[in-house]
Amino acid sequence: MSGTAVNQGKTRTAISPVREQDFPEWYQQVIKAAELAENSPVRGCMVIRPWGYGLWERMQKHLDQKIKDTGHDNAYFPLFIPLSFLEREAEHVEGFAKECAVVTHHRLEAKDGKLVPAGELEEPLVVRPTSETIVGDCFSRWVESHRDLPLKINQWANVVRWEMRPRLFLRTAEFLWQEGHTAHATEEEAKEETLMILELYRSFVEDVLAVPVIVGEKSPAERFPGAENTYSMEAMMQDRKALQMGTSHYLGQNFSKACKIQFTNKNGELEHAYTTSWGVTTRMIGSVIMVHGDDDGVRLPPRIAAKQVVILPVIPKEELREQVLAYAHKVAEEIRQSSFHGESVLVHVDDRDLRGGEKNWQWIKKGIPLRIEVGPRDMENDAVMLFRRDKAHKDRLSLKREELAQKVPEILQEMQDYYFRQAKAWRSEHIYEDITDLAELETFFTPKNSKKPEIHGGFVRAKWCGEAGTEEELDKLKLAIRCIPIEQSGTQGTCIITGKPATTDVIIAKSY
Amino acid sequence: MSGTAVNQGKTRTAISPVREQDFPEWYQQVIKAAELAENSPVRGCMVIRPWGYGLWERMQKHLDQKIKDTGHDNAYFPLFIPLSFLEREAEHVEGFAKECAVVTHHRLEAKDGKLVPAGELEEPLVVRPTSETIVGDCFSRWVESHRDLPLKINQWANVVRWEMRPRLFLRTAEFLWQEGHTAHATEEEAKEETLMILELYRSFVEDVLAVPVIVGEKSPAERFPGAENTYSMEAMMQDRKALQMGTSHYLGQNFSKACKIQFTNKNGELEHAYTTSWGVTTRMIGSVIMVHGDDDGVRLPPRIAAKQVVILPVIPKEELREQVLAYAHKVAEEIRQSSFHGESVLVHVDDRDLRGGEKNWQWIKKGIPLRIEVGPRDMENDAVMLFRRDKAHKDRLSLKREELAQKVPEILQEMQDYYFRQAKAWRSEHIYEDITDLAELETFFTPKNSKKPEIHGGFVRAKWCGEAGTEEELDKLKLAIRCIPIEQSGTQGTCIITGKPATTDVIIAKSY
Repeated sequence: MSGTAVNQGKTRTAISPVREQDFPEWYQQVIKAAELAENSPVRGCMVIRPWGYGLWERMQKHLDQKIKDTGHDNAYFPLFIPLSFLEREAEHVEGFAKECAVVTHHRLEAKDGKLVPAGELEEPLVVRPTSETIVGDCFSRWVESHRDLPLKINQWANVVRWEMRPRLFLRTAEFLWQEGHTAHATEEEAKEETLMILELYRSFVEDVLAVPVIVGEKSPAERFPGAENTYSMEAMMQDRKALQMGTSHYLGQNFSKACKIQFTNKNGELEHAYTTSWGVTTRMIGSVIMVHGDDDGVRLPPRIAAKQVVILPVIPKEELREQVLAYAHKVAEEIRQSSFHGESVLVHVDDRDLRGGEKNWQWIKKGIPLRIEVGPRDMENDAVMLFRRDKAHKDRLSLKREELAQKVPEILQEMQDYYFRQAKAWRSEHIYEDITDLAELETFFTPKNSKKPEIHGGFVRAKWCGEAGTEEELDKLKLAIRCIPIEQSGTQGTCIITGKPATTDVIIAKSY
Repeated sequence: MSGTAVNQGKTRTAISPVREQDFPEWYQQVIKAAELAENSPVRGCMVIRPWGYGLWERMQKHLDQKIKDTGHDNAYFPLFIPLSFLEREAEHVEGFAKECAVVTHHRLEAKDGKLVPAGELEEPLVVRPTSETIVGDCFSRWVESHRDLPLKINQWANVVRWEMRPRLFLRTAEFLWQEGHTAHATEEEAKEETLMILELYRSFVEDVLAVPVIVGEKSPAERFPGAENTYSMEAMMQDRKALQMGTSHYLGQNFSKACKIQFTNKNGELEHAYTTSWGVTTRMIGSVIMVHGDDDGVRLPPRIAAKQVVILPVIPKEELREQVLAYAHKVAEEIRQSSFHGESVLVHVDDRDLRGGEKNWQWIKKGIPLRIEVGPRDMENDAVMLFRRDKAHKDRLSLKREELAQKVPEILQEMQDYYFRQAKAWRSEHIYEDITDLAELETFFTPKNSKKPEIHGGFVRAKWCGEAGTEEELDKLKLAIRCIPIEQSGTQGTCIITGKPATTDVIIAKSY
């Protein structure tokens, strides 16, 4: 076994600290060990390294197809938004003004031997925190008649929201995302779109990322600035905190009025369109780490791994190198012939000149689903040795070469299902329905009351009366209503905040 | 015929003015008519509309595969670059300082009822005009030993260079591109990479965009700021001006010294790495328009068209609608079964409720390679009517349904080849080798000396002595050495600028 695993009391783990000791620090260390990303010299901006970017590319590929299949076209809008545009929707600018990167100059000039900003702009430009207003401006020109609707556009882009407490993938000043923007002739159609996208996201996140989510509507305090309704998916991390995985907004006529998106309806009357917007971001990568990771690193669900299988040639003597490498490539080629979810299985031969143990541990930390060792003995038996990331790292399975094309996709599917099941079981264990007032809620979320203070709390499912101002009581406890689940029990009860009669189920949790 | 084609003297064309009347205005009108892009309210920033973005997605798909196949990994680096980073390489900052978007504040604040920039940054941030310095900073951390080399990274991103005279696709303040950055242990290997990429670009541009290019090295005055050698591809537009299609730079140790990219070589000594960078941009879309477009709009080479075939249902009576649409979808499905360059043919059924003539002309202007009409008569004959964008718009070919799967890919390939051949013939006609001094050069490039003042000049292939300062003489005539072609004749001659003996062949032209 390699020296890169360290001794943590009884068992050796590749990541230190382990999750139970210090979850936030474990998260940072996993990202470093798996070479997913790193902080850049620009405060709050991250560098996404190839292994992390590969995850994003897989996510893009899956989602882009779904977005196109549901009739949306990709387009690209400017990075910069004139300040006056942002101001058109009052709640919107209020929501984003505190975290905007502002461009004020368009060149640099030498002054006293130092370069300083020069060429001041007449109107400052904001680096897009989101694009409703600039897209709305285009829509106002593209839409004239009801025949131009629905207009369904998607953009893959970078956006910037100045973060005071940045954290890799979860909260970064710059992040990557897709943002959908649609305009419809009727309220009903726009609302349908909002929920259709929510379901598209849910199936993507659950089926591909293997992350179980609760879908629901946001309470008023948590709505997107300028939205009528905001829907989200909420996932539970292994520290039992909630992570919002993506949102879909019904914007009513707020932005169409602000941006003048008008159309002539079938009766020849001028009407404002009904719009939606929706997005998911590189933050999803953080969820994969925090939902599936273990004390040896990341564990990637096969469907989002940029490489699903790595072949590790074992070369005991230099004179066997060529033979073993040829065998490794032959095995790789055979596995590539098999398909997983309609695609060729993604196989990589790691022929780097590096100690076997070190190489092996690098791939464990990176969370590749399958490692396949091939050495002279395997060659003799026309076999390989297979290691699964969801099993103990010494567990091995000898397989005949001829079995691989069939077995590999089967095992990948098994792992995909197992990761989802495991995450769902974890979540079920930590959803609590027996907490009924604020005092109990406070006790429940106080670390010292937990056996494992580093990992405590969970999702509390409770009743809420919905009265204005009540959410502030949760805010004081650093808690929030994560969502009002679409699936409601329909039972009668009492509000966890006011004690008044209430029927609405909500999920309360700490969150990222 | 539709009313959207206008009368231009003898022949009717969809675009007005025609190329010979006013080429720059024709270019703007084509982009508008084909719905490729538009100017945004942000000066110099464009909106890339779905039909234009579809071209970019096809370009990305082709290039991304080639870049990965040659061993490069995608990653993502920050949008913002600290001013101090840019200053690390003297020529580099000099080259970009005059056109930088500068972020100076990180929030907005209400002041006298107006929002103004607040939260001034300690150090201004520049929106990346290119990423050598920020990537170099990462490389300095990722590279320690010769075992970490070569390091071969690519990024797909937006960049900003403040343009005083913006022009859609060709010169925009924000544009999209890929930028490759590699580090190597030896000068030889880095130089090989630079030229390998140049060849990768050439084959992409010629085979996929059907744009013939001359590959060569840039003269010192035209080098990338900070590069030792810059190579480029130069294409001739239909107005005979040159467009630079992409560049590949050998950076020597300039950036590795500026960014401290050092490695321990096999002898245990510390050395600076040798780096390269290279990129192509959304400007390539401009070349496709200006090389292949005609007076009816764009003509898209099939390999980059986001849709290669559109099916246009002809519905003379409402009661036939369902039947015709079903037939149209059946035909579409059958064509999708056939493959073009390893991919399913991209077919779209346009079932919009719009007049047939208008619909037809929209697709002509958009340059889709094939239009297929299906109506009740075609159904009876189990046939379709096919129209090619490279033929007159009334030329039709009746095809049996059963022929389509074979014929469509054949015709697409014929068109791809034809567009390339036609562009190459145009270029050959306008390369001049008989101009031998500055006076002749000036005469040749003076519009009034041409029969068609709007379209004049060409590529002049001449000898150059290479002496410092000589390029300024061309600059006075608004000309430049576009490149020193890799393919040299090896003949003796006299320098077109100084009249001194010279052997180096250069291409001189006006350019975008």
